Amino acid sequence: MSEPKHGPRVLEVPPGDDRERLVCPECRFVHYDNPRVIVGSVCSSGDDILICRRAIEPRRGYWTLPAGFLELNETTEDGAKREAWEEARAKIEVEQLLAVYDVPHISQVQLIFRATLIDRNVRAGPESEEVRLVPFEQIPWGDIAFPSVRWALEHFRQVRDQRTFVPFNNPPGQSGAPPSGAHNPGAL
Amino acid sequence: MSEPKHGPRVLEVPPGDDRERLVCPECRFVHYDNPRVIVGSVCSSGDDILICRRAIEPRRGYWTLPAGFLELNETTEDGAKREAWEEARAKIEVEQLLAVYDVPHISQVQLIFRATLIDRNVRAGPESEEVRLVPFEQIPWGDIAFPSVRWALEHFRQVRDQRTFVPFNNPPGQSGAPPSGAHNPGAL
Repeated sequence: MSEPKHGPRVLEVPPGDDRERLVCPECRFVHYDNPRVIVGSVCSSGDDILICRRAIEPRRGYWTLPAGFLELNETTEDGAKREAWEEARAKIEVEQLLAVYDVPHISQVQLIFRATLIDRNVRAGPESEEVRLVPFEQIPWGDIAFPSVRWALEHFRQVRDQRTFVPFNNPPGQSGAPPSGAHNPGAL
Repeated sequence: MSEPKHGPRVLEVPPGDDRERLVCPECRFVHYDNPRVIVGSVCSSGDDILICRRAIEPRRGYWTLPAGFLELNETTEDGAKREAWEEARAKIEVEQLLAVYDVPHISQVQLIFRATLIDRNVRAGPESEEVRLVPFEQIPWGDIAFPSVRWALEHFRQVRDQRTFVPFNNPPGQSGAPPSGAHNPGAL
């Protein structure tokens, strides 16, 4: 990323703080930047899973789950419902927390729920090129947008027949960070 | 809160966005404000629970759990360990996610873990007046800092003898919002 030409951009330790924050040299505004929360869901209807083909970067054209940034004053469950609607025009019932994934290299915490579709009437929202309801065997595993999408789908499969379960975390040894110069691969 | 005298302070919908964000009228910097993640833990040692008396506002002098804002590039578990060290000089082993609490009126998502103390050698860090290791009956229930501290302690008690369990959410009907004009009662 190129350096922004205005706004908070100089690293300083503000008075009373113990670590560097971005400060605007013109107006002295301190930007307290914090990790962001991603909320999303694995939504099923019978044997089928809802997947969305991304219409936006990063990873445009690749397949993901309905998920995105939690907004201010929103609960995590409401955020997951909103994302299902925005990306797939899907109305869902949230069942239980499926997983919490840490993606520290991009400062994300991802809360992924297990959910069921209230009806099968889904269609692409503005951030999706296409949405599909497919059985597990028809998931395009070679064209998944991000590692955590694959994790969530595989974790979902493991507890599919269980009424309750302990939520998953990152698979052992996996942080979601790129193995090489891949583009922002942990983002949802 | 009084309006800040500089920095992002005017609500505008930035180009390509779909909701109002704070923009700085001088430098045009857009402040994308997002919910913050609180990480913390209920730490036990035998029959005792670690509690901390707050040395800072809000709710100075009241009792809390070691918890605070997740920092950039930090995993949630590492954040909980850091907070235990900063507030109580406690070294902990994180066991499992105890609860996820939504506190939307202050845009917080709280991830509280069940943890054990590696040793009983704890002492107040800079944000605590005092720390104690006390059995459940000696918790000062009348002087708890925030609703979610009470929730976490009560949820911990419910699964204390269970090796694994489904994490808790907010108690039914409770959002952590103030019943009246109480000061920021959901914050940790």
